[in-house]
Amino acid sequence: MVGGGKGSFIGPIHRMAIRMDDLADLVDGCYSHADDWRAMLERCRGKADFISICTPNDSHYEIAKAALEYGFDVMCEKPLSMSLAEATELERLARRKRRVLGIPFTYSGYPMVKLARDLIARGELGKIDKVVLEYQQGSFRKIDFSKPLDKRNAWKMNPKKSGPSCVVADIGVHGFHLIEHVTGLQVKEVIADLSSFAPGNRLDDDASMLLRLSGGAKASFVVSKVATGEENGVRLRVYGDKASLFWNQEENNYLSVKYPFEPERIYKRKAPYIGEVSEASVALSRIPAGHHEGFIEAFANIYREFCAAVRDRRAHDFPGPREGVRTMRFVEAALRSSSNGNRWEKV
Amino acid sequence: MVGGGKGSFIGPIHRMAIRMDDLADLVDGCYSHADDWRAMLERCRGKADFISICTPNDSHYEIAKAALEYGFDVMCEKPLSMSLAEATELERLARRKRRVLGIPFTYSGYPMVKLARDLIARGELGKIDKVVLEYQQGSFRKIDFSKPLDKRNAWKMNPKKSGPSCVVADIGVHGFHLIEHVTGLQVKEVIADLSSFAPGNRLDDDASMLLRLSGGAKASFVVSKVATGEENGVRLRVYGDKASLFWNQEENNYLSVKYPFEPERIYKRKAPYIGEVSEASVALSRIPAGHHEGFIEAFANIYREFCAAVRDRRAHDFPGPREGVRTMRFVEAALRSSSNGNRWEKV
Amino acid sequence: MVGGGKGSFIGPIHRMAIRMDDLADLVDGCYSHADDWRAMLERCRGKADFISICTPNDSHYEIAKAALEYGFDVMCEKPLSMSLAEATELERLARRKRRVLGIPFTYSGYPMVKLARDLIARGELGKIDKVVLEYQQGSFRKIDFSKPLDKRNAWKMNPKKSGPSCVVADIGVHGFHLIEHVTGLQVKEVIADLSSFAPGNRLDDDASMLLRLSGGAKASFVVSKVATGEENGVRLRVYGDKASLFWNQEENNYLSVKYPFEPERIYKRKAPYIGEVSEASVALSRIPAGHHEGFIEAFANIYREFCAAVRDRRAHDFPGPREGVRTMRFVEAALRSSSNGNRWEKV
Amino acid sequence: MVGGGKGSFIGPIHRMAIRMDDLADLVDGCYSHADDWRAMLERCRGKADFISICTPNDSHYEIAKAALEYGFDVMCEKPLSMSLAEATELERLARRKRRVLGIPFTYSGYPMVKLARDLIARGELGKIDKVVLEYQQGSFRKIDFSKPLDKRNAWKMNPKKSGPSCVVADIGVHGFHLIEHVTGLQVKEVIADLSSFAPGNRLDDDASMLLRLSGGAKASFVVSKVATGEENGVRLRVYGDKASLFWNQEENNYLSVKYPFEPERIYKRKAPYIGEVSEASVALSRIPAGHHEGFIEAFANIYREFCAAVRDRRAHDFPGPREGVRTMRFVEAALRSSSNGNRWEKV
Repeated sequence: MVGGGKGSFIGPIHRMAIRMDDLADLVDGCYSHADDWRAMLERCRGKADFISICTPNDSHYEIAKAALEYGFDVMCEKPLSMSLAEATELERLARRKRRVLGIPFTYSGYPMVKLARDLIARGELGKIDKVVLEYQQGSFRKIDFSKPLDKRNAWKMNPKKSGPSCVVADIGVHGFHLIEHVTGLQVKEVIADLSSFAPGNRLDDDASMLLRLSGGAKASFVVSKVATGEENGVRLRVYGDKASLFWNQEENNYLSVKYPFEPERIYKRKAPYIGEVSEASVALSRIPAGHHEGFIEAFANIYREFCAAVRDRRAHDFPGPREGVRTMRFVEAALRSSSNGNRWEKV
Repeated sequence: MVGGGKGSFIGPIHRMAIRMDDLADLVDGCYSHADDWRAMLERCRGKADFISICTPNDSHYEIAKAALEYGFDVMCEKPLSMSLAEATELERLARRKRRVLGIPFTYSGYPMVKLARDLIARGELGKIDKVVLEYQQGSFRKIDFSKPLDKRNAWKMNPKKSGPSCVVADIGVHGFHLIEHVTGLQVKEVIADLSSFAPGNRLDDDASMLLRLSGGAKASFVVSKVATGEENGVRLRVYGDKASLFWNQEENNYLSVKYPFEPERIYKRKAPYIGEVSEASVALSRIPAGHHEGFIEAFANIYREFCAAVRDRRAHDFPGPREGVRTMRFVEAALRSSSNGNRWEKV
Repeated sequence: MVGGGKGSFIGPIHRMAIRMDDLADLVDGCYSHADDWRAMLERCRGKADFISICTPNDSHYEIAKAALEYGFDVMCEKPLSMSLAEATELERLARRKRRVLGIPFTYSGYPMVKLARDLIARGELGKIDKVVLEYQQGSFRKIDFSKPLDKRNAWKMNPKKSGPSCVVADIGVHGFHLIEHVTGLQVKEVIADLSSFAPGNRLDDDASMLLRLSGGAKASFVVSKVATGEENGVRLRVYGDKASLFWNQEENNYLSVKYPFEPERIYKRKAPYIGEVSEASVALSRIPAGHHEGFIEAFANIYREFCAAVRDRRAHDFPGPREGVRTMRFVEAALRSSSNGNRWEKV
Repeated sequence: MVGGGKGSFIGPIHRMAIRMDDLADLVDGCYSHADDWRAMLERCRGKADFISICTPNDSHYEIAKAALEYGFDVMCEKPLSMSLAEATELERLARRKRRVLGIPFTYSGYPMVKLARDLIARGELGKIDKVVLEYQQGSFRKIDFSKPLDKRNAWKMNPKKSGPSCVVADIGVHGFHLIEHVTGLQVKEVIADLSSFAPGNRLDDDASMLLRLSGGAKASFVVSKVATGEENGVRLRVYGDKASLFWNQEENNYLSVKYPFEPERIYKRKAPYIGEVSEASVALSRIPAGHHEGFIEAFANIYREFCAAVRDRRAHDFPGPREGVRTMRFVEAALRSSSNGNRWEKV
C-alpha cells in the first residue's frame, strides 16, 4: 500500500475492506512522504500481488504507472489521475501489460445499487428518460479556511495536489460513475455551473449540472461540498417510461421502485424475494436482511471482485481503467463548460 | 366562480378552502362552456365581493380583466395568463382599479413553508448560496395519449388552451414561486432544457433548469410530469452558509433544519416551541401538532389572507399580481432558453 | 351544538368538518356553562336535524339522553359516557327512538385506515395473530400541574368531570376502537397496568396493556400522555399469517403492507391502483394522491357518513352506540384489571 | 472457534468482526459435530488466547465450562446456557479462574445505542418512566414447518437443542439486555404472554410482555418470530420526564431525541457535534457520518472491547457473565409467568 497512513480517511477503509473477506494480507506499506514508494515496489517484487494507492491525487498517475510497469496489479483511488491524458495512458499501459487496474467507485459496490443496475438492465424501468442525482456534502462548512487546514483537507484545496477541480474530481466522479453504472447509458454532453462558495477556497466546491445521455435521456446532477448540514447525501432517482427507482445512500439497504398503477415497492438488501431479482445484488450481501451493511462492506465488495480478477485473470464486476478514463473525460468537460459560459461540452 | 364545475380538480378545492374557515358564501357560478360568464358578472354586481376563476389557462386573462373592470376583486388560478404581456396588463389594471388580485400558489400557504421563509428572513440560514428544487409528477405516465383525453387533461396538452408551455406553466410556476417566496431572492437568469418525453405529447413535460439568483445564489430546478410513479414530489432544499433546510411536500407538516455542528432539527407544525419561531406559521395552523393538515388547509390559508385583503383593503400575505408577473416572466425566459440552445436567459 | 366554545379544541374541528363538505348549517349553539342547553334543545325542535355534543365527559350522557328523547339525532364526543351503564342506556334509547347516534372515533375516518380494514376483511393478511398499537402523547409533560390548569386541560384531570380514567377514557378508547375496527375482531380480555407518572396528576396518564382477541389473536397496547416529546403518535401494526400492515397516524396518507417474500408495499391515499383495492378508502379521499389530507378531512368523513344516515335513515359506515358501549366496557375492564393486581379481565 | 461452520449464520459474523480491526488470528477451529472440541482445546493450549463458541444453545455451557477450566478466555454466543443455574455456575467459574467471558449482545455495540446509554446516564432524559421495546422478526413465516427444516433453523425449534424457550431465549434476551443496558435500570418483574402461532412449532414464537423496572419505570416489551414481513425490527423508545429517545435498528446510524418544547433532534453517528455528547459512541465509529456502519461493525465493537480485556486483564465495556445471568433469569421468569396465568414473576 502506498499512502493511507496516519490521519488518512481512506487508508483504513482499504485495509478493513480487504480484511473483511480475508482477501489478501498487507505485506508492505509506504505510508508517508518520508518513505520511498519506489523502494517499496522494488522490495515487493514477487511478494505482493497488487498495490493499493491511497495518496493525494497528484501522485496517482506516477505511482500507478510505475506499479503497472513493475508488473503489479493496481487498485488506485479516484480520481485516477490529474488529467484525461494521464488516465488514457494508464488505461493503455494496463491493457498492454495485461494488468488489473481497479478504482474504488464505492457506490457501485452497494448491493442495492447493483439491484438498481440489474433491474434497469433487464428492462424493468423501460426506456430511461430522466435521471436526477444529488451528491451533497457540507464538509466545507465545518472548516475555517482562514486557519491552516489539517492534512486530510489541505491537499484537496491545493490545485497542485488535487488537480484543477475539487468538488467535481473528488465526489463528482462518484456521481458520474453511479449514473453511467446504474443506467447503462453514456453521458454525452454536460452544462456545468461551478462555484466556489466557501470563503478562502480557490477551487470549485459546488456544481449544478445538466447532462444529456445516450438514447435521449437527460439528467440533472448536483454536487456540493458546501451543502451545509449534509453529511454524504447521495440521492439517485431514475425515471423510465415504465417505472422509476430511488436510492438514498443514507438508507443504503433499501431501494424504492415505483410503477404508475401499483403501490411503491421497497426492496431490502438480501431479502428472499420470489422470482428473478438480482443474483449480483444478493452475492454482494454478507448478512441477512434486517441487519445493516454499509460503506465498508460496499468497499469490500469492490475489492472482492478486484481480487477475483487478480486471481483468475478474467473480467469481473468492478470499476477499472475504462471508468477511470470516462470520469476524467467528464471532469475536463465540466471544467470547460463552466469556463465557457456554461455551454454544452462533449464528454 | 367561473369554471371549476364537474370533473374539475381545482374547483372543489376552492370551494372547500373557502368553506373551511367560513370566509365567504358562493353566491353564483358559471361552471361550464354553456354558461355565459359575462352574464354572471353582470348578475353579481353588488352581490358578490370577489370572483374565483378556475377555467383553463386561455381564458384567465379575459375573465380576470372583465371582472376587475366590473370592480370585483379576483382570485385567479395560475398561471395568471397565456403571456407575460397579459399578466403585466392585469397587474396594471388591478393597481389602477385598486382591486385585490390573488393567485393560489398553494405551497406558500403551508405552515412549514411559512416557517422556512421566516427562518431565512431573520438570518437563521445565513447567506443563501444554493437551492435545489424538484417538482416531480408522474401523471403523464398514467395517460394513454393515443386515446381521447379526459376533460381534466385534454386542455393541458393543447397549446391553444394551456399556452406555449405545459410543465413549466402548470407546475414550474409553483416551484419558481416557492423558491422566490422562501428565499426572498429573485431569480435573475435561467438555463432550461425542456423535453417532451410522453409519446404523443406536443408540449414540454419535463424541464431541467439551472438558475442564478440575486446575491450570487445558484439553483438546480427540476420539474416533470413524466417522473413515473411520483405523485406530487415537491422537495425543496435551501443551503445557507450557516444552516440548511429541507421541506418535502409529501411530509408537509415537518421542516428539517441542519447546522454544521448540531443534530438535525425536525420542526413540527404548531408545536409549542420555546423562543421566537414564526408567528405566521403558527397562525396558519388550525389544529395541534401531531395531527396532520394538508393541501386543503394550505389552500384555505391563501384564501384567508386574500379575504382579509378583500375585507380591509390592506396588504396581506398571499400571492398577487407581482407574483403572477414574475412567474410569467420566468415561463417565457425558460422557453427562450430551451429554444436558444440552452443559453442563459434573463428572467 | 352543545359545548365546543371558546378555548375548545374539538369544537372548531366539528364545525370545520361539517362545513368542508357543506353537510349542514349550524343553526344554534350553547357554548358555555352560562347557556342553557335544554332551552336550546327546545328552541331547535323542528329546526335542527341533529345535535353535536362537545362538552366535558360528565355531561355527555345527560345531554345525549335529552337530545334523543327530544327526537334529535346526536353526534356525541367520546367517551360516550362516564360509565358502561350509561352507555348501554343510551344505546337502548337510540334504538328505541330510532335515532342516529354517532361518536367521532376519528381514526376510522382516515382513508388508509379504511383501506387497512378492507384489506383484512377480504383476507389479504390471512388469519390475524398479533396486533401492536401505540398511542403516545407527551401532552402532560408540557403542563405544570402545580399551577392552575387551563380550561382545556383542567376537566380532564378532574375525576368528577372526566370520569374514573383519564388516559384510557380519553385516548385509549380511540386505540381500542381502531383495533376492533381494523381487525374486525373483538377484544375479549385485558391485562392493564395503569400509572400516574405526571407529578400532581390524580388519574391514570399511562397504560401498558395486553389483550386477547377473538380468534386467538393477541395484542400489545400502549397508551400514554407522558410520552415526552410525542405529539400524537398513533402507530398500528397488524400481523396476519399471510401479511402484515403498518399505519402511522403521523404519516397518515400511507399504508405499508409486507408479505414474506415480496418487497414492502407502500399504498398511497387515492392512488389509482389497478385491481380491487378499497372503494371505501377512495370514497373518503377528496384530493388526488401526492397532496395530503389530514385530521379535519378524517373528521369530515365521519360526519359525512353520519349525515347520510341522518338523511336516509339507513346504516352507514361510522361509529355509533355499539362502539360507544364497547369502548366503555373496555375502560371499565382496564380499570378493574389495574386495581386487581393486573389480572385478566373480561371486556 | 467451536461451531460456526458451514451454513452457520453467526460463525462468519464472528470471523469478519474479529478481522475487521485485526484483533486476532483464527488459529484453530472445530466447526462440526464430527470434530472433537475437547481435542481442539487441548491443541490450543498456549497457542490461543480465547475461544469463540458459536454452537447451538445446548452445548454452550459444557464447552464454555471446559474452556474456562483450561484457562482460556471465552466469547460465548447467547443465550449463555440452557438454564439460570448453568449461567450462574459459569459466572462463578469465570470469576474464580479470573477469565474473561464475553457474550455478544450485539445491540450494545451500536454507536447510537451507546449514545443513548450515555445521554440517559448523565440525566438528559431525566427520570425514566416508560420503555417500549419491539423486537419483531417474521422469519418463521418463511418456513414450511411441515417439511424438514434446514440446519440453521432445525435446532432452534428443538427444545433439546435450544432449551425451553425459542423466541424469548433467542431474541428476547437481546431486547432485555438492550433495555437494561440503555436505561441503566434493572427489570424487577415480568408478565409474559407467550404464544406458538406458527403451525407445527412446539416452542414459543411470540411474546407480549409487561415489565416493571427499578425506580418505578414500566415497560411494554414485544418479541416475535411470526411478525410477518418484518426482517429485524428492533425499535426502542425510552421516555423520561425531561426528554425521550427513539432508536430503530433498521436505521441504526441515527438516534432521535425529543424534548417537550424543542424541535426533534436527530443525532448521527460520528457527526462532529459541539459540546459533550458521548466519547464512547464516537470511539465505536470507524468511518465519518453520512456513510453507514451496520451489524458487522457493531459486532466488531463488542469484540474490540472483549479483546482489550483479554489483553490488559481489566474491565472493558462489553456484555459478560453478569449479563448472561441476568438474561437467563429473565427467560425463566417469563416462562414461569406465561405458565402461571400471566402473573407477575420476579426476575
